[in-house]
Amino acid sequence: MFNYITCCNKWLYIHQSKIEYLQPQGNKGNFTFNKFDLDGFYMSQNVAVILSGCGVFDGAEINEVVLTLLHLEKNGASYQCFAPDQPQHHVINHITGEEVFETRNVLVESARIVRGNIQALSECVVDGFDALIVPGGFGVAKNLSDFAFNGTHMTVNPELLSISKKFKDADKPAGYMCIAPALCAHIYGEGVKATIGIDEDTASALSAMGTSHCSAQVGEIVIDEAHKLVTTPAYMLAENIVQAESGIAKLVAEVLKLSTQNGS
Amino acid sequence: MFNYITCCNKWLYIHQSKIEYLQPQGNKGNFTFNKFDLDGFYMSQNVAVILSGCGVFDGAEINEVVLTLLHLEKNGASYQCFAPDQPQHHVINHITGEEVFETRNVLVESARIVRGNIQALSECVVDGFDALIVPGGFGVAKNLSDFAFNGTHMTVNPELLSISKKFKDADKPAGYMCIAPALCAHIYGEGVKATIGIDEDTASALSAMGTSHCSAQVGEIVIDEAHKLVTTPAYMLAENIVQAESGIAKLVAEVLKLSTQNGS
Repeated sequence: MFNYITCCNKWLYIHQSKIEYLQPQGNKGNFTFNKFDLDGFYMSQNVAVILSGCGVFDGAEINEVVLTLLHLEKNGASYQCFAPDQPQHHVINHITGEEVFETRNVLVESARIVRGNIQALSECVVDGFDALIVPGGFGVAKNLSDFAFNGTHMTVNPELLSISKKFKDADKPAGYMCIAPALCAHIYGEGVKATIGIDEDTASALSAMGTSHCSAQVGEIVIDEAHKLVTTPAYMLAENIVQAESGIAKLVAEVLKLSTQNGS
Repeated sequence: MFNYITCCNKWLYIHQSKIEYLQPQGNKGNFTFNKFDLDGFYMSQNVAVILSGCGVFDGAEINEVVLTLLHLEKNGASYQCFAPDQPQHHVINHITGEEVFETRNVLVESARIVRGNIQALSECVVDGFDALIVPGGFGVAKNLSDFAFNGTHMTVNPELLSISKKFKDADKPAGYMCIAPALCAHIYGEGVKATIGIDEDTASALSAMGTSHCSAQVGEIVIDEAHKLVTTPAYMLAENIVQAESGIAKLVAEVLKLSTQNGS
């Protein structure tokens, strides 16, 4: 009936019940629809993924990033990774756990995980995305916030705070894993439901900041339906990659499912 | 009938047809068997995985490492990662592709991928493992060899050459992916069957060094039955993580299958 649709600034071509991307320079046809017009058609979703460096002790948890992107692909979603273009808080030798006195950049190091396909967080235009996912690692608590140093008196990186609030204000879903849910009270406000697993001290810190903390095991997710927020413990509890994957796969699927309930 | 078995220096406990690990300090019982005595029982295999840094352009390809470890776990195998304790050939900014004039260590950077759980390559005792896997990335051609600089006149890192030849001499299987099959002629000798995908120049270089190169697509593996060697193109061809996983999953499964044909 209609041959062309749009989704998040991407043109899709409907051909025998399959939808294919058009190249940006392609003929866009004359018809545009939002998702509510397309019940029964599969919509490819575009997800912004925010990294915080490269390596669990001073950056993003690498397994969590790779598993997130793997499951976005498996669910047919596209994605773009971002990271703040700023110095890392510090550099940690991942064998000894000791600080190394050199300077590295969060964006440049994050690029290692994604073969260079990354953009500065300042370039993230929320209108272009259906959802947001923030993998964990100490980088979230050191580079995307200062939770690792200031605990309940933490602040969130202003660029990330602004962008994540725009996703919230646009009613677009988000997934935060591992220690990243520590940021959620600052983004979603008092009473937001989230999990960091079962660690009592960390859970207490989240509660003190206004989060309604829900205990969860590594393969579980916690969904705050009102805020379209999904959280999972990942490497707060995972003892291996398969365990981490169990919760991350569910988080990705749920975030994508919630985004189909958007008009974005 | 018998309650205890050994496999690669690990004690396993048979309980109602399931096999569980004993802690190293556990009671080892009185019985030892090798694999040939245990037809029908599942044997947990232990695999040495050799990394070459952290990041595709100057180290190990991160997705390939994570996917290898993920599929080892999914197949019930245990593993230990190793990397040479030596300076990286150089450091590449993964956004610009340009060299950065600083010094990083291959072992220390590789540790980022595996949350610090890594040992120096010099500590790899072949007797403790059933098989060897070498993921790719330019690190293989820059840190584990000099293929990136000297092409067909390349040499292999002497430590790696010694260890990989011991796996061959013990008739233990090995998997090499991405650009790592470039090392195989030096390890296995003239006529060894391997693939780096379909790139004609790289294939010609391998042929010139004595490899019998077999073209393969990203989801395929090439098996040299005589040498118990499995290769797959991975990111020599993969355009995304799902494609890379398709070949790596097959490589891991085949290496583990071949190792059950060993008495190791």
